[in-house]
Amino acid sequence: MMTTLATEQVERLLSMRAMVDEHLALHLKTTREQGDGDVVDLAEHVLMSGGKRLRPLLVLLAYEAAGGVRVEDILPLALAFELIHTATLVHDDMNDEADQRRGRTTLHLLAGAPKAIITGDWLFVQGFGLGGRYDERVVSIMARSCSDIAVAEFLQLDHIDDLTTSPEDYLDIVRGKTAGPFAAGCQAAALVAGRTTEEAEHFRVFGEELGVAFQLVDDLLDLRGSPTMGKPRGVDVVEGKMTLPLIHALTLSHGADRDRLASILASFKDEDWPDLMDLLKRSSSLEYAEVLVDLHLERAATALKRVADGPALPLMLGMLREVGERTR
Amino acid sequence: MMTTLATEQVERLLSMRAMVDEHLALHLKTTREQGDGDVVDLAEHVLMSGGKRLRPLLVLLAYEAAGGVRVEDILPLALAFELIHTATLVHDDMNDEADQRRGRTTLHLLAGAPKAIITGDWLFVQGFGLGGRYDERVVSIMARSCSDIAVAEFLQLDHIDDLTTSPEDYLDIVRGKTAGPFAAGCQAAALVAGRTTEEAEHFRVFGEELGVAFQLVDDLLDLRGSPTMGKPRGVDVVEGKMTLPLIHALTLSHGADRDRLASILASFKDEDWPDLMDLLKRSSSLEYAEVLVDLHLERAATALKRVADGPALPLMLGMLREVGERTR
Repeated sequence: MMTTLATEQVERLLSMRAMVDEHLALHLKTTREQGDGDVVDLAEHVLMSGGKRLRPLLVLLAYEAAGGVRVEDILPLALAFELIHTATLVHDDMNDEADQRRGRTTLHLLAGAPKAIITGDWLFVQGFGLGGRYDERVVSIMARSCSDIAVAEFLQLDHIDDLTTSPEDYLDIVRGKTAGPFAAGCQAAALVAGRTTEEAEHFRVFGEELGVAFQLVDDLLDLRGSPTMGKPRGVDVVEGKMTLPLIHALTLSHGADRDRLASILASFKDEDWPDLMDLLKRSSSLEYAEVLVDLHLERAATALKRVADGPALPLMLGMLREVGERTR
Repeated sequence: MMTTLATEQVERLLSMRAMVDEHLALHLKTTREQGDGDVVDLAEHVLMSGGKRLRPLLVLLAYEAAGGVRVEDILPLALAFELIHTATLVHDDMNDEADQRRGRTTLHLLAGAPKAIITGDWLFVQGFGLGGRYDERVVSIMARSCSDIAVAEFLQLDHIDDLTTSPEDYLDIVRGKTAGPFAAGCQAAALVAGRTTEEAEHFRVFGEELGVAFQLVDDLLDLRGSPTMGKPRGVDVVEGKMTLPLIHALTLSHGADRDRLASILASFKDEDWPDLMDLLKRSSSLEYAEVLVDLHLERAATALKRVADGPALPLMLGMLREVGERTR
C-alpha cells in the first residue's frame, strides 16, 4: 500500500496504527466494564472495522514533529479525533442512507435509526471526554472544528444535486468537513508539544492543505475507481454529491455537452460511465483536480518544513507523496 | 407557578433563569458571527423556546450553596448542561417521532432528519466546548453523565411496550437519563466552588434524588394531566413508555384486571382513560408513586443539608417542595 516510503517508515506507520487500534480497543473495554453494554457493542462494530486511522496518526506525527516526546501526553487527543470522526461517520451514513461502511453493515441498518443516533452521540461524548482533558486552547480548537463539520454538512446537504454549486462552495464544504479536523488535530498537537501559537499555525496549515488534497484525491478515486484499493466507484455521483471534477466540468462545458452532463448527473446509471468519463476528459477536469492535489500537497510541505523537525518530518513528507500517488 | 416559595425567592429564580436565557442567546450570537449560519437558526428554534432551565439553575444554585461566589466561573458549566440537554431532546424527539417540543414544531419535521441530527450534534459540541474549559474531574463527570444518558436511552428503547419491565429497569433508565445530569451538574458545581470530593458527593446525591423525584412527578403528570400547566396527558402511554405507576399496576394486578391493563397499554385509545385510571386506583399505583416522590425528595433534602450553606439552601429546599407540590 505504501510504495514510496522506506520499509522502516512503513513499519513505523503500521506500528503507530496498531498502537491506536490497541488503545481504542482498551477504551471500549473500560467503558464496557463501566456498564455501557450494548452501546459499546455497536460502537465497536463501526470503530474497530479497519479504519486507516489517518487523523490519530497525523496527531501523533505532528506532536513528534513539533518536538513532543511523551506519547502518553498526546494519545488521548489522537484517540479523541478518531472517536469524533467515527461519530460523524455514523450520523453521515444515516443521512446518506448508506448501507455499508468499511465493509460492514451500517449501524442504522444493523440496529435501527434510534440506536444509531444514540451510538453516534455516545462516540462524540467519548471523544470529548478524552479531548476535554487538555487545556482551553486545545478544547476550543476541537469544539471549533466540530462546529465547522456541522456547518459544512449543512452546506453539503443544501448542494446535493445542485448543478450550480461553485468551486468556492465545494472548498467551504471540504475545509469544514475533511480539512478542518486534519488542521485542528495538527494545530492542537503542536500546542500540546509546547510550540507557540504562531508555530502551531503552520502545523494547522499543513493539516488543512493535506486535508484538501486528500479530499480531492477521494473525489478522483470516486470517478476513476481504484481496483488495487477495492474501493467502489461512483458513490458520490449516485448520491448527488458535487465533487470538484464534476463542478469543473459543468463550469467549462457548453451546449449539448453540458446538457448531456447535467442529464447524466441528474439520474446516473452504470451505463453512463463511458459518456461521463468522455465529458470529463474533454474539459480536462480530472487533470485539473490532479494539478490542485499537487498544489495543496506542495503548500502542506512548505508549511511543515518551516516548523517540523526530527524523523517525523520525512515520514510526514512521505505521507504527502503517498496521497499524491493514490490518484496516479 | 411557584406557590410555596417567598416572593423574593421566586424573583431570584426568575432573574437567574433570565440570566441563563440571556447568555444562551449571547452564545448563539457569537457562533452566528463566526459563520455557523443555518445551524444556529435551527438550534435557536429549539433552545430559545421557553425551557424551564432546570439543569443550569441547579448548577448555579449548587455552586452558590457550596460557597462559590464568582458567577462567571460557573456560568459556562451551567450553559453546557442546558446545551447538552437540548441536544438530547432533538435526537430524542426523532427517536420518539414527536411533532411538538416546548410548543414548537420539532426540528426533524421542520428541517428534515439529516439537519436535525446535525443540529443535535452541533448542540452537543457547544456544550462540550464550554464544559471542556473545566478541569479533568469536571470533564470526566460530564462525559460519564453523557455516556450514561446514551446507555439509559438504549435501555428505554429496549423496554418500549415491554410489559415485563421491572421497577429496577425503570430506575436504571431514570438514573441515567434524568437524574444523572442533575447529579453530575450539582457534583461538578460543588467541585468548581472548591469543595472536596467527599462534599461534592453529597451534592451529587442531592441532584440524583431530586432527579428521580422529578421524573416520578413527570410520570404522574402524564397520567393525571395538569390543566394549570397546559401539559397534555398520556404521551408516555401512547409511546409505550413504561412509567413507574404502570409498572407498579402491572405487577400488582391479576387475572382480568391485568389482562385489561395489558390490552389498554398495547393499543391505547382516548376512551380508555376512565378504565386505566380505575385500574391504577385499584392497585394504588399513583399513591405509590407519590410516596416515592416524597421519599426521594426527603433524601435529597438530607444530603443537601449536610453540606449546603447560605441563602441558596432555603431556595433549593423550596424547589424540592415545589417538585412535590406539582403532583398534588
